[in-house]
Amino acid sequence: MEAARGGDRRVLARLLSAIERGDDQSRAIDQAAFGLVGQAYTVGITGAPGAGKSTLTSATVATARALGERIAVLAIDPSSPFSGGALLGDRTRMNEHALDDGVFIRSMATRGHLGGLALATREAGRLLDAVGFPWILIETVGVGQVEVEVAGAADTTVVVVNPGWGDSVQANKAGLMEIADVFVVNKADRDGAAQTAHDIEGMLDLTRGVADDGWRPPVVSTVGTTGAGTQEFWDAIVAHRCHLESTGGLEQRRQDRLRDELVLVVQHRLRAEAEARVAAADRERIEHDLLHGRIDPWTAADQVLGDR
Amino acid sequence: MEAARGGDRRVLARLLSAIERGDDQSRAIDQAAFGLVGQAYTVGITGAPGAGKSTLTSATVATARALGERIAVLAIDPSSPFSGGALLGDRTRMNEHALDDGVFIRSMATRGHLGGLALATREAGRLLDAVGFPWILIETVGVGQVEVEVAGAADTTVVVVNPGWGDSVQANKAGLMEIADVFVVNKADRDGAAQTAHDIEGMLDLTRGVADDGWRPPVVSTVGTTGAGTQEFWDAIVAHRCHLESTGGLEQRRQDRLRDELVLVVQHRLRAEAEARVAAADRERIEHDLLHGRIDPWTAADQVLGDR
Repeated sequence: MEAARGGDRRVLARLLSAIERGDDQSRAIDQAAFGLVGQAYTVGITGAPGAGKSTLTSATVATARALGERIAVLAIDPSSPFSGGALLGDRTRMNEHALDDGVFIRSMATRGHLGGLALATREAGRLLDAVGFPWILIETVGVGQVEVEVAGAADTTVVVVNPGWGDSVQANKAGLMEIADVFVVNKADRDGAAQTAHDIEGMLDLTRGVADDGWRPPVVSTVGTTGAGTQEFWDAIVAHRCHLESTGGLEQRRQDRLRDELVLVVQHRLRAEAEARVAAADRERIEHDLLHGRIDPWTAADQVLGDR
Repeated sequence: MEAARGGDRRVLARLLSAIERGDDQSRAIDQAAFGLVGQAYTVGITGAPGAGKSTLTSATVATARALGERIAVLAIDPSSPFSGGALLGDRTRMNEHALDDGVFIRSMATRGHLGGLALATREAGRLLDAVGFPWILIETVGVGQVEVEVAGAADTTVVVVNPGWGDSVQANKAGLMEIADVFVVNKADRDGAAQTAHDIEGMLDLTRGVADDGWRPPVVSTVGTTGAGTQEFWDAIVAHRCHLESTGGLEQRRQDRLRDELVLVVQHRLRAEAEARVAAADRERIEHDLLHGRIDPWTAADQVLGDR
């Protein structure tokens, strides 16, 4: 941890790999990081695949750097449980920052289940905080549940959409309206960008009456490939941060996150225990009975958990 | 159960509601159903929102009915954990079958978490099997993890895409290639349908060498709104069924599913236990210490689990 705090990128990468694996080491790393956090501000960037999040993130990093801010980027990859491989698209756009000491970029895959992703994301954010990055961007190619879990790890959640989103059928549109602190209409040089921003404002009128905490998500238009609008985007993030800090909302969000995380950690531990139990001695007999229709899954679960 | 087996739709709907809620009743229902299953064949239909799955499903139901087959449809709705509401699109298309005694259609929402959805889907499928439907279509608006979990509940998994899919960036494309037993290019009256079918064949060439079990997913083109191609689609499903039955693959899949389900049930029970434990006696003190930085989440989890 000391080496990572001193700026050793290879050590930092190794610590993040341990967190990604979720092995025994990760607990020790996370516990060490826990005592050192508190200075970083975390921004989650989410939206459908192809929305241009990676390009926008890269342009935003450039904006932050121009303002002298040090910044870390975590690109979360909810990869297929089958392939296990990285399916991230345009990572290469990030290469422009590869030689900048004020920027750290890292992709992270899941640990095989969604609870694992949520935990690993929080722990990785905490580590980047502990080693001294004042800004952390968490970008996900996720959709649905993954977006929501990543939003649960961020102080400010940004939802990136494209022109036409207002008309599109999207399963989790309502969920996105609820998690967004800032909306970005990216690829705003395409037809229909103004209409989409207008549609989002209309949806915000519908879903947020007198806003819960007085914050109405701004809708910012950007062109990630040219960097147009990224300054306004950064300003919107900073404005939301100021709002949260001045209303006590930031402290509240972070406390809620810690409470959630406690449940996640307990689940994770119990899940590991369950897997170990099903793998143990009696497994073959229980499975045999289950597969031959002698016992149903509930009774089999009773037997697996029976020795507790 | 007897009333539902006798054809009482209101009773069947009530049993499915209990399964959806996942309450104590659902265990008894599922255990009763477990002893009565074995005749039904389950087809999972998945793909991105807007791909026209609902329309295709409805057209397929019409095809099956014309062949004299009784059929049940489960429309799985992985709704936002925030809104909790149904976001299914074009349910109204199903209305044409509302008066047909040989068809049963039901939407099911999640039970708040993905493990719950996977379990509820399996239990609902088992119930529909137990009450005597020989064909069960499970349609999901899901993406990513949800698709994979629904695929885990079906004998044959159908992936529905639209013209242009070959060019699209989609986070879980590789995962879809792996779960598909049948590919459907729906809305095939649009530009690029032939090219998309060609692209999928090319991807199949790449990802499936000498196929694991000798089955190469056929790529069928349909127009759900007119019913064009739905006979070929049905034939492809029946062909895959015959393949699985003749190779022993069906028995293998079902055994694998039961094994998975056992792990799911055990996880589900442990998750409920985790929530209960965190909510229990010492919670306030542990949370207080956690929120004030006196203990980290791991130590807090130790304390929650400490009485074991």
